[in-house]
Amino acid sequence: MEAKSAKIRLYVDHPLGQGQSIDLAREQAHYLFGVMRLAEGAAVALFNGRDGEWLAKVAEAGKRGGRLECIAQTRPLQMPPDLWLLFAPIKKARTDFIVEKAAEMGAARILPVQTDFTNSERIRQDRLQAHAVEAAEQCGGTYVPEVAELQKLSRMLDHWPADRRLMFCDEALADGAPARSGLPDDPAASERGTSEPWAILIGPEGGFSEAERARLHALPQAQAVSLGPRILRADTAAVAALTLWQSSRGDWR
Amino acid sequence: MEAKSAKIRLYVDHPLGQGQSIDLAREQAHYLFGVMRLAEGAAVALFNGRDGEWLAKVAEAGKRGGRLECIAQTRPLQMPPDLWLLFAPIKKARTDFIVEKAAEMGAARILPVQTDFTNSERIRQDRLQAHAVEAAEQCGGTYVPEVAELQKLSRMLDHWPADRRLMFCDEALADGAPARSGLPDDPAASERGTSEPWAILIGPEGGFSEAERARLHALPQAQAVSLGPRILRADTAAVAALTLWQSSRGDWR
Repeated sequence: MEAKSAKIRLYVDHPLGQGQSIDLAREQAHYLFGVMRLAEGAAVALFNGRDGEWLAKVAEAGKRGGRLECIAQTRPLQMPPDLWLLFAPIKKARTDFIVEKAAEMGAARILPVQTDFTNSERIRQDRLQAHAVEAAEQCGGTYVPEVAELQKLSRMLDHWPADRRLMFCDEALADGAPARSGLPDDPAASERGTSEPWAILIGPEGGFSEAERARLHALPQAQAVSLGPRILRADTAAVAALTLWQSSRGDWR
Repeated sequence: MEAKSAKIRLYVDHPLGQGQSIDLAREQAHYLFGVMRLAEGAAVALFNGRDGEWLAKVAEAGKRGGRLECIAQTRPLQMPPDLWLLFAPIKKARTDFIVEKAAEMGAARILPVQTDFTNSERIRQDRLQAHAVEAAEQCGGTYVPEVAELQKLSRMLDHWPADRRLMFCDEALADGAPARSGLPDDPAASERGTSEPWAILIGPEGGFSEAERARLHALPQAQAVSLGPRILRADTAAVAALTLWQSSRGDWR
Protein backbone atom coordinates (compact mmCIF):
# COMPACT_ATOMS: atom_id res chain seq x y z
CA MET A 1 0.00 0.00 0.00
CA GLU A 2 2.52 2.64 -1.13
CA ALA A 3 1.43 6.17 -1.86
CA LYS A 4 0.40 6.45 -5.50
CA SER A 5 2.69 9.37 -6.31
CA ALA A 6 5.50 7.85 -4.22
CA LYS A 7 8.59 9.99 -4.35
CA ILE A 8 11.75 7.92 -4.50
CA ARG A 9 13.12 6.84 -1.13
CA LEU A 10 16.70 5.69 -1.07
CA TYR A 11 18.86 4.16 1.66
CA VAL A 12 22.43 5.49 1.63
CA ASP A 13 25.31 4.43 3.85
CA HIS A 14 26.44 8.02 4.37
CA PRO A 15 25.96 10.70 7.04
CA LEU A 16 22.96 12.95 6.39
CA GLY A 17 22.72 16.55 7.65
CA GLN A 18 22.29 20.17 6.63
CA GLY A 19 24.39 20.94 3.55
CA GLN A 20 25.71 17.38 3.41
CA SER A 21 26.76 16.21 -0.04
CA ILE A 22 26.47 12.55 -1.05
CA ASP A 23 28.49 11.04 -3.88
CA LEU A 24 26.55 8.25 -5.56
CA ALA A 25 27.91 4.82 -6.37
CA ARG A 26 27.53 3.56 -9.92
CA GLU A 27 24.52 1.35 -9.13
CA GLN A 28 22.66 4.14 -7.36
CA ALA A 29 23.35 6.53 -10.24
CA HIS A 30 22.09 3.94 -12.71
CA TYR A 31 18.89 3.50 -10.69
CA LEU A 32 18.16 7.21 -10.20
CA PHE A 33 19.19 8.55 -13.60
CA GLY A 34 18.98 5.53 -15.90
CA VAL A 35 15.93 3.67 -14.54
CA MET A 36 13.97 6.43 -12.76
CA ARG A 37 15.08 9.18 -15.19
CA LEU A 38 15.66 11.86 -12.55
CA ALA A 39 17.20 15.09 -13.83
CA GLU A 40 19.33 17.65 -11.99
CA GLY A 41 17.23 19.47 -9.39
CA ALA A 42 14.86 16.51 -8.84
CA ALA A 43 13.93 15.61 -5.27
CA VAL A 44 14.82 12.33 -3.52
CA ALA A 45 14.09 11.19 0.05
CA LEU A 46 17.15 9.76 1.79
CA PHE A 47 17.67 7.83 5.02
CA ASN A 48 20.62 5.99 6.47
CA GLY A 49 19.10 4.30 9.52
CA ARG A 50 20.64 6.87 11.89
CA ASP A 51 19.81 10.47 10.91
CA GLY A 52 16.10 10.34 10.07
CA GLU A 53 14.72 11.12 6.62
CA TRP A 54 16.12 13.98 4.52
CA LEU A 55 14.88 15.73 1.43
CA ALA A 56 17.74 15.90 -1.05
CA LYS A 57 18.07 17.19 -4.57
CA VAL A 58 20.10 15.93 -7.50
CA ALA A 59 23.15 18.23 -7.82
CA GLU A 60 24.94 16.25 -10.54
CA ALA A 61 23.56 13.42 -12.68
CA GLY A 62 25.89 11.19 -14.69
CA LYS A 63 25.87 7.71 -16.19
CA ARG A 64 28.48 6.35 -13.81
CA GLY A 65 27.95 8.57 -10.79
CA GLY A 66 26.37 11.68 -9.45
CA ARG A 67 25.88 13.79 -6.37
CA LEU A 68 22.95 14.58 -4.09
CA GLU A 69 22.66 17.47 -1.64
CA CYS A 70 20.67 17.36 1.60
CA ILE A 71 18.13 20.19 1.87
CA ALA A 72 16.12 19.59 5.03
CA GLN A 73 15.21 16.85 7.47
CA THR A 74 11.66 15.70 6.74
CA ARG A 75 11.31 13.14 9.57
CA PRO A 76 13.31 12.36 12.67
CA LEU A 77 14.77 8.88 13.21
CA GLN A 78 12.03 6.60 14.48
CA MET A 79 13.56 3.65 16.29
CA PRO A 80 11.45 0.47 16.43
CA PRO A 81 10.85 -1.14 19.84
CA ASP A 82 13.70 -3.26 21.21
CA LEU A 83 12.39 -6.43 19.59
CA TRP A 84 14.45 -9.22 18.01
CA LEU A 85 13.04 -11.73 15.56
CA LEU A 86 14.71 -15.15 15.70
CA PHE A 87 13.72 -17.59 12.96
CA ALA A 88 14.96 -20.83 11.43
CA PRO A 89 15.75 -20.29 7.73
CA ILE A 90 13.49 -22.19 5.35
CA LYS A 91 13.17 -22.25 1.58
CA LYS A 92 14.85 -19.27 -0.10
CA ALA A 93 11.76 -17.31 -1.13
CA ARG A 94 10.11 -17.70 2.26
CA THR A 95 13.29 -16.73 4.12
CA ASP A 96 13.49 -13.56 2.01
CA PHE A 97 9.88 -12.95 2.84
CA ILE A 98 10.40 -13.28 6.60
CA VAL A 99 13.22 -10.71 6.48
CA GLU A 100 11.12 -8.31 4.40
CA LYS A 101 8.15 -8.67 6.76
CA ALA A 102 10.25 -8.28 9.91
CA ALA A 103 11.62 -4.97 8.59
CA GLU A 104 8.13 -3.74 7.65
CA MET A 105 6.63 -4.80 10.95
CA GLY A 106 9.28 -3.03 13.01
CA ALA A 107 11.73 -5.61 14.37
CA ALA A 108 14.99 -4.03 15.57
CA ARG A 109 17.22 -7.06 14.83
CA ILE A 110 16.74 -10.15 12.68
CA LEU A 111 18.58 -13.28 13.83
CA PRO A 112 18.54 -16.45 11.70
CA VAL A 113 19.00 -19.45 14.01
CA GLN A 114 19.90 -23.06 13.42
CA THR A 115 17.64 -25.45 15.33
CA ASP A 116 17.65 -29.24 15.62
CA PHE A 117 15.21 -29.50 12.69
CA THR A 118 16.60 -26.66 10.53
CA ASN A 119 17.65 -27.91 7.11
CA SER A 120 19.66 -24.85 6.18
CA GLU A 121 23.37 -24.92 7.07
CA ARG A 122 24.13 -21.46 5.74
CA ILE A 123 22.48 -18.24 4.68
CA ARG A 124 23.48 -15.38 2.42
CA GLN A 125 23.62 -12.67 5.06
CA ASP A 126 24.42 -9.91 2.53
CA ARG A 127 21.41 -10.79 0.38
CA LEU A 128 19.09 -10.89 3.38
CA GLN A 129 20.44 -7.53 4.59
CA ALA A 130 19.68 -6.07 1.15
CA HIS A 131 16.08 -7.30 1.48
CA ALA A 132 15.79 -5.52 4.83
CA VAL A 133 17.08 -2.29 3.24
CA GLU A 134 14.59 -2.58 0.37
CA ALA A 135 11.71 -3.20 2.79
CA ALA A 136 12.70 -0.10 4.80
CA GLU A 137 12.76 1.94 1.58
CA GLN A 138 9.25 0.71 0.73
CA CYS A 139 7.55 0.99 4.09
CA GLY A 140 8.66 4.52 4.91
CA GLY A 141 10.82 3.41 7.83
CA THR A 142 13.84 5.47 8.86
CA TYR A 143 15.57 2.49 10.52
CA VAL A 144 17.03 -0.68 8.97
CA PRO A 145 17.18 -3.79 11.14
CA GLU A 146 20.50 -5.59 11.15
CA VAL A 147 20.40 -9.17 9.83
CA ALA A 148 22.85 -11.27 11.85
CA GLU A 149 24.84 -14.29 10.66
CA LEU A 150 23.33 -17.74 11.24
CA GLN A 151 23.83 -18.89 14.85
CA LYS A 152 22.97 -22.06 16.73
CA LEU A 153 19.82 -21.62 18.82
CA SER A 154 21.28 -23.77 21.60
CA ARG A 155 24.29 -21.45 21.87
CA MET A 156 22.08 -18.36 21.96
CA LEU A 157 19.99 -19.88 24.75
CA ASP A 158 23.20 -20.64 26.70
CA HIS A 159 23.87 -16.91 26.85
CA TRP A 160 20.32 -15.55 26.77
CA PRO A 161 20.23 -12.02 28.29
CA ALA A 162 18.60 -12.03 31.73
CA ASP A 163 16.45 -8.97 30.97
CA ARG A 164 15.18 -9.99 27.50
CA ARG A 165 11.88 -11.83 27.36
CA LEU A 166 11.35 -14.47 24.68
CA MET A 167 8.00 -15.22 23.08
CA PHE A 168 8.01 -18.54 21.26
CA CYS A 169 5.26 -20.08 19.22
CA ASP A 170 4.62 -23.63 20.28
CA GLU A 171 2.51 -25.73 17.95
CA ALA A 172 1.83 -28.15 20.78
CA LEU A 173 -0.33 -25.40 22.28
CA ALA A 174 -2.52 -25.22 19.19
CA ASP A 175 -5.66 -26.22 21.05
CA GLY A 176 -4.57 -24.64 24.32
CA ALA A 177 -3.75 -21.16 25.55
CA PRO A 178 -5.27 -18.42 23.43
CA ALA A 179 -2.99 -16.02 21.59
CA ARG A 180 -3.66 -12.89 23.60
CA SER A 181 -3.74 -14.35 27.08
CA GLY A 182 -0.11 -15.36 26.64
CA LEU A 183 0.78 -11.78 25.86
CA PRO A 184 -1.36 -9.39 27.88
CA ASP A 185 -1.34 -5.66 27.15
CA ASP A 186 1.29 -3.77 29.10
CA PRO A 187 0.04 -0.20 29.51
CA ALA A 188 2.89 0.47 31.95
CA ALA A 189 5.38 -0.06 29.12
CA SER A 190 4.10 2.98 27.23
CA GLU A 191 4.08 5.07 30.41
CA ARG A 192 7.70 4.17 30.97
CA GLY A 193 8.31 5.44 27.45
CA THR A 194 10.70 2.65 26.63
CA SER A 195 9.73 -0.88 25.84
CA GLU A 196 11.17 -3.88 27.65
CA PRO A 197 13.64 -5.91 25.56
CA TRP A 198 11.82 -8.79 23.89
CA ALA A 199 12.45 -11.42 21.24
CA ILE A 200 10.12 -13.57 19.14
CA LEU A 201 11.25 -17.07 18.12
CA ILE A 202 9.64 -18.80 15.12
CA GLY A 203 10.39 -22.49 14.80
CA PRO A 204 11.31 -24.36 11.62
CA GLU A 205 9.12 -26.65 9.54
CA GLY A 206 8.91 -29.73 11.68
CA GLY A 207 8.69 -27.62 14.83
CA PHE A 208 11.11 -27.69 17.75
CA SER A 209 12.73 -30.90 18.96
CA GLU A 210 11.63 -32.28 22.33
CA ALA A 211 14.95 -31.16 23.83
CA GLU A 212 14.50 -27.62 22.50
CA ARG A 213 10.90 -27.46 23.66
CA ALA A 214 11.86 -28.59 27.19
CA ARG A 215 14.66 -26.06 27.30
CA LEU A 216 12.43 -23.20 26.12
CA HIS A 217 9.71 -24.02 28.62
CA ALA A 218 12.33 -24.06 31.39
CA LEU A 219 13.80 -20.66 30.47
CA PRO A 220 12.42 -18.11 32.96
CA GLN A 221 12.39 -15.35 30.33
CA ALA A 222 10.38 -17.46 27.86
CA GLN A 223 6.66 -17.23 27.20
CA ALA A 224 4.84 -19.77 25.01
CA VAL A 225 2.08 -18.42 22.77
CA SER A 226 -0.37 -20.23 20.51
CA LEU A 227 -1.23 -18.97 17.04
CA GLY A 228 -4.63 -20.59 16.61
CA PRO A 229 -6.02 -23.99 15.65
CA ARG A 230 -4.46 -24.27 12.18
CA ILE A 231 -0.76 -24.98 11.59
CA LEU A 232 0.82 -21.83 10.18
CA ARG A 233 3.77 -21.82 7.81
CA ALA A 234 6.83 -20.18 9.37
CA ASP A 235 6.48 -17.02 7.28
CA THR A 236 2.82 -16.60 8.25
CA ALA A 237 3.66 -17.29 11.89
CA ALA A 238 6.34 -14.57 11.82
CA VAL A 239 3.91 -11.87 10.67
CA ALA A 240 1.19 -13.08 13.06
CA ALA A 241 3.54 -13.13 16.07
CA LEU A 242 4.95 -9.69 15.22
CA THR A 243 1.37 -8.37 14.97
CA LEU A 244 0.40 -9.76 18.37
CA TRP A 245 3.50 -8.29 19.98
CA GLN A 246 3.33 -4.88 18.27
CA SER A 247 -0.36 -4.46 19.08
CA SER A 248 -0.01 -5.43 22.74
CA ARG A 249 3.43 -4.06 23.68
CA GLY A 250 5.02 -2.35 20.70
CA ASP A 251 4.57 0.80 18.65
CA TRP A 252 1.13 -0.03 17.20
CA ARG A 253 -0.61 1.06 20.37
CA MET B 1 5.87 -25.40 10.45
CA GLU B 2 4.53 -28.68 9.10
CA ALA B 3 4.94 -31.89 11.05
CA LYS B 4 8.25 -33.50 10.09
CA SER B 5 6.80 -36.90 9.40
CA ALA B 6 3.78 -35.35 7.68
CA LYS B 7 1.45 -37.95 6.33
CA ILE B 8 -0.02 -36.93 3.01
CA ARG B 9 -3.15 -34.79 3.21
CA LEU B 10 -5.22 -34.56 0.06
CA TYR B 11 -8.26 -32.51 -0.85
CA VAL B 12 -10.79 -34.44 -2.91
CA ASP B 13 -14.04 -33.18 -4.41
CA HIS B 14 -15.93 -36.31 -3.40
CA PRO B 15 -18.19 -37.32 -0.50
CA LEU B 16 -16.31 -38.93 2.41
CA GLY B 17 -17.88 -41.42 4.80
CA GLN B 18 -17.66 -44.91 6.23
CA GLY B 19 -16.87 -47.43 3.48
CA GLN B 20 -16.82 -44.68 0.83
CA SER B 21 -14.67 -45.45 -2.19
CA ILE B 22 -12.91 -42.65 -4.11
CA ASP B 23 -11.77 -43.04 -7.69
CA LEU B 24 -8.68 -40.95 -8.33
CA ALA B 25 -8.18 -38.64 -11.28
CA ARG B 26 -5.04 -39.05 -13.35
CA GLU B 27 -3.23 -36.12 -11.70
CA GLN B 28 -3.98 -37.35 -8.19
CA ALA B 29 -2.81 -40.85 -9.07
CA HIS B 30 0.40 -39.43 -10.53
CA TYR B 31 1.03 -37.43 -7.35
CA LEU B 32 0.30 -40.26 -4.91
CA PHE B 33 1.88 -43.18 -6.76
CA GLY B 34 4.38 -41.53 -9.11
CA VAL B 35 5.71 -38.65 -7.01
CA MET B 36 5.03 -39.82 -3.43
CA ARG B 37 5.51 -43.53 -4.22
CA LEU B 38 2.60 -44.80 -2.15
CA ALA B 39 1.86 -48.50 -2.49
CA GLU B 40 -1.40 -50.39 -2.00
CA GLY B 41 -2.40 -50.33 1.67
CA ALA B 42 -0.66 -47.00 2.37
CA ALA B 43 -2.53 -44.41 4.44
CA VAL B 44 -3.67 -41.00 3.19
CA ALA B 45 -5.59 -38.26 5.01
CA LEU B 46 -8.51 -36.91 2.99
CA PHE B 47 -10.80 -33.91 3.37
CA ASN B 48 -13.35 -32.31 1.08
CA GLY B 49 -14.27 -29.15 2.98
CA ARG B 50 -17.57 -30.66 4.18
CA ASP B 51 -17.12 -34.06 5.89
CA GLY B 52 -14.10 -33.48 8.17
CA GLU B 53 -10.84 -35.41 7.81
CA TRP B 54 -10.82 -39.12 6.98
CA LEU B 55 -8.12 -41.75 7.14
CA ALA B 56 -8.14 -43.64 3.86
CA LYS B 57 -6.02 -46.40 2.43
CA VAL B 58 -4.86 -47.07 -1.10
CA ALA B 59 -7.05 -49.87 -2.48
CA GLU B 60 -5.74 -49.77 -6.06
CA ALA B 61 -2.65 -47.96 -7.37
CA GLY B 62 -2.15 -47.42 -11.10
CA LYS B 63 -0.25 -45.09 -13.40
CA ARG B 64 -3.35 -43.42 -14.74
CA GLY B 65 -5.75 -43.87 -11.85
CA GLY B 66 -6.44 -45.63 -8.62
CA ARG B 67 -8.88 -45.97 -5.78
CA LEU B 68 -8.89 -44.99 -2.10
CA GLU B 69 -11.17 -46.35 0.61
CA CYS B 70 -12.28 -44.37 3.67
CA ILE B 71 -11.50 -46.15 6.95
CA ALA B 72 -12.44 -43.76 9.75
CA GLN B 73 -13.07 -40.10 10.43
CA THR B 74 -10.02 -38.64 12.19
CA ARG B 75 -11.32 -35.09 12.72
CA PRO B 76 -14.71 -33.45 12.43
CA LEU B 77 -15.26 -30.53 10.07
CA GLN B 78 -13.96 -27.38 11.73
CA MET B 79 -15.62 -24.35 10.19
CA PRO B 80 -13.69 -21.07 10.41
CA PRO B 81 -15.47 -18.02 11.86
CA ASP B 82 -17.83 -16.18 9.50
CA LEU B 83 -15.09 -13.86 8.24
CA TRP B 84 -14.62 -12.62 4.68
CA LEU B 85 -11.36 -11.22 3.36
CA LEU B 86 -11.76 -8.55 0.67
CA PHE B 87 -8.57 -7.44 -1.05
CA ALA B 88 -7.51 -5.59 -4.19
CA PRO B 89 -5.39 -7.88 -6.39
CA ILE B 90 -1.76 -6.81 -6.74
CA LYS B 91 1.23 -8.39 -8.45
CA LYS B 92 0.74 -12.08 -9.18
CA ALA B 93 3.04 -13.56 -6.54
CA ARG B 94 1.67 -11.34 -3.79
CA THR B 95 -1.93 -12.05 -4.78
CA ASP B 96 -1.20 -15.78 -4.58
CA PHE B 97 0.35 -15.15 -1.22
CA ILE B 98 -2.70 -13.30 0.14
CA VAL B 99 -4.97 -16.19 -0.86
CA GLU B 100 -2.62 -18.76 0.72
CA LYS B 101 -2.41 -16.73 3.95
CA ALA B 102 -6.17 -16.12 4.13
CA ALA B 103 -6.78 -19.88 3.93
CA GLU B 104 -4.14 -20.61 6.60
CA MET B 105 -5.40 -17.88 8.90
CA GLY B 106 -9.00 -19.09 8.75
CA ALA B 107 -10.99 -16.78 6.47
CA ALA B 108 -14.30 -18.32 5.36
CA ARG B 109 -14.50 -16.51 1.99
CA ILE B 110 -11.93 -14.68 -0.12
CA LEU B 111 -13.26 -11.86 -2.29
CA PRO B 112 -10.95 -10.06 -4.75
CA VAL B 113 -12.29 -6.53 -5.27
CA GLN B 114 -11.62 -3.84 -7.84
CA THR B 115 -11.08 -0.43 -6.28
CA ASP B 116 -10.46 2.99 -7.85
CA PHE B 117 -6.69 2.44 -7.63
CA THR B 118 -6.60 -1.30 -8.46
CA ASN B 119 -4.45 -1.99 -11.50
CA SER B 120 -5.70 -5.49 -12.08
CA GLU B 121 -8.69 -5.85 -14.41
CA ARG B 122 -8.97 -9.59 -14.12
CA ILE B 123 -7.84 -12.50 -11.98
CA ARG B 124 -7.42 -16.22 -12.58
CA GLN B 125 -10.08 -17.41 -10.16
CA ASP B 126 -9.32 -21.11 -10.80
CA ARG B 127 -5.63 -20.65 -10.04
CA LEU B 128 -6.35 -18.71 -6.84
CA GLN B 129 -8.86 -21.39 -5.76
CA ALA B 130 -6.14 -24.03 -6.28
CA HIS B 131 -3.84 -22.02 -3.98
CA ALA B 132 -6.53 -22.00 -1.29
CA VAL B 133 -6.87 -25.79 -1.60
CA GLU B 134 -3.11 -26.28 -1.33
CA ALA B 135 -2.94 -24.03 1.75
CA ALA B 136 -5.72 -26.04 3.40
CA GLU B 137 -3.84 -29.28 2.64
CA GLN B 138 -0.70 -27.80 4.27
CA CYS B 139 -2.18 -26.17 7.35
CA GLY B 140 -4.28 -29.11 8.49
CA GLY B 141 -7.56 -27.31 7.86
CA THR B 142 -10.70 -29.31 7.06
CA TYR B 143 -12.36 -26.37 5.30
CA VAL B 144 -11.43 -24.63 2.03
CA PRO B 145 -12.46 -20.99 1.63
CA GLU B 146 -14.18 -20.14 -1.64
CA VAL B 147 -12.34 -17.61 -3.82
CA ALA B 148 -14.93 -15.43 -5.56
CA GLU B 149 -14.65 -13.77 -8.97
CA LEU B 150 -13.36 -10.19 -9.10
CA GLN B 151 -16.09 -7.70 -8.19
CA LYS B 152 -16.25 -3.92 -8.02
CA LEU B 153 -15.89 -2.67 -4.43
CA SER B 154 -18.41 0.11 -5.08
CA ARG B 155 -21.03 -2.44 -6.14
CA MET B 156 -20.36 -4.59 -3.07
CA LEU B 157 -20.77 -1.58 -0.81
CA ASP B 158 -24.10 -0.73 -2.55
CA HIS B 159 -25.46 -4.06 -1.31
CA TRP B 160 -23.44 -4.50 1.88
CA PRO B 161 -25.29 -6.86 4.30
CA ALA B 162 -26.81 -4.96 7.22
CA ASP B 163 -25.55 -7.48 9.80
CA ARG B 164 -21.96 -7.86 8.54
CA ARG B 165 -19.35 -5.61 10.11
CA LEU B 166 -16.44 -4.40 7.97
CA MET B 167 -12.96 -3.72 9.32
CA PHE B 168 -10.88 -1.66 6.91
CA CYS B 169 -7.28 -0.63 7.25
CA ASP B 170 -6.88 3.08 6.68
CA GLU B 171 -3.35 4.34 6.14
CA ALA B 172 -4.49 7.84 6.99
CA LEU B 173 -4.85 6.58 10.58
CA ALA B 174 -1.21 5.50 10.74
CA ASP B 175 -0.39 7.90 13.55
CA GLY B 176 -3.84 7.72 15.07
CA ALA B 177 -6.03 5.09 16.62
CA PRO B 178 -4.11 2.11 17.92
CA ALA B 179 -4.70 -1.28 16.39
CA ARG B 180 -6.46 -2.96 19.27
CA SER B 181 -8.69 -0.14 20.45
CA GLY B 182 -10.43 -0.24 17.07
CA LEU B 183 -11.21 -3.90 17.62
CA PRO B 184 -11.89 -4.62 21.27
CA ASP B 185 -12.20 -8.17 22.55
CA ASP B 186 -15.73 -9.52 22.40
CA PRO B 187 -16.07 -12.17 25.11
CA ALA B 188 -19.82 -12.28 24.50
CA ALA B 189 -19.18 -13.63 21.01
CA SER B 190 -17.64 -16.83 22.34
CA GLU B 191 -20.45 -17.23 24.88
CA ARG B 192 -22.97 -16.97 22.08
CA GLY B 193 -21.04 -19.79 20.45
CA THR B 194 -21.31 -18.25 17.01
CA SER B 195 -19.28 -15.35 15.78
CA GLU B 196 -20.85 -12.24 14.30
CA PRO B 197 -20.43 -11.93 10.53
CA TRP B 198 -17.41 -9.77 9.76
CA ALA B 199 -15.26 -8.80 6.80
CA ILE B 200 -11.75 -7.37 6.50
CA LEU B 201 -10.95 -5.04 3.60
CA ILE B 202 -7.32 -4.53 2.51
CA GLY B 203 -6.73 -1.64 0.13
CA PRO B 204 -4.55 -1.64 -2.98
CA GLU B 205 -1.11 -0.13 -3.40
CA GLY B 206 -1.87 3.57 -3.55
CA GLY B 207 -4.55 3.20 -0.88
CA PHE B 208 -8.22 4.03 -1.24
CA SER B 209 -9.46 7.00 -3.26
CA GLU B 210 -10.95 9.93 -1.35
CA ALA B 211 -14.41 8.92 -2.56
CA GLU B 212 -13.93 5.35 -1.32
CA ARG B 213 -12.54 6.52 2.00
CA ALA B 214 -15.51 8.87 2.56
CA ARG B 215 -17.92 6.11 1.66
CA LEU B 216 -16.26 3.58 3.99
CA HIS B 217 -16.21 6.00 6.90
CA ALA B 218 -19.92 6.71 6.34
CA LEU B 219 -20.92 3.02 6.30
CA PRO B 220 -22.45 2.23 9.71
CA GLN B 221 -21.09 -1.34 9.65
CA ALA B 222 -17.52 -0.15 8.96
CA GLN B 223 -14.71 0.16 11.48
CA ALA B 224 -11.37 1.79 10.59
CA VAL B 225 -8.26 0.20 12.13
CA SER B 226 -4.63 1.31 12.01
CA LEU B 227 -1.79 -1.14 11.46
CA GLY B 228 1.05 0.82 13.04
CA PRO B 229 3.38 3.65 12.06
CA ARG B 230 5.01 1.99 9.04
CA ILE B 231 3.26 1.53 5.70
CA LEU B 232 2.61 -2.19 5.21
CA ARG B 233 2.48 -3.89 1.85
CA ALA B 234 -0.97 -5.27 1.08
CA ASP B 235 0.11 -8.88 1.71
CA THR B 236 1.62 -8.01 5.10
CA ALA B 237 -1.47 -5.97 6.00
CA ALA B 238 -3.71 -8.94 5.18
CA VAL B 239 -1.90 -11.27 7.62
CA ALA B 240 -1.69 -8.55 10.30
CA ALA B 241 -5.40 -7.68 10.04
CA LEU B 242 -6.42 -11.37 10.10
CA THR B 243 -4.24 -11.84 13.22
CA LEU B 244 -5.86 -8.90 15.03
CA TRP B 245 -9.34 -10.15 14.18
CA GLN B 246 -8.71 -13.82 14.97
CA SER B 247 -7.06 -13.02 18.30
CA SER B 248 -9.79 -10.62 19.45
CA ARG B 249 -12.98 -12.15 17.98
CA GLY B 250 -12.12 -15.30 16.07
CA ASP B 251 -11.03 -18.85 16.78
CA TRP B 252 -7.58 -18.02 18.24
CA ARG B 253 -9.06 -17.21 21.62
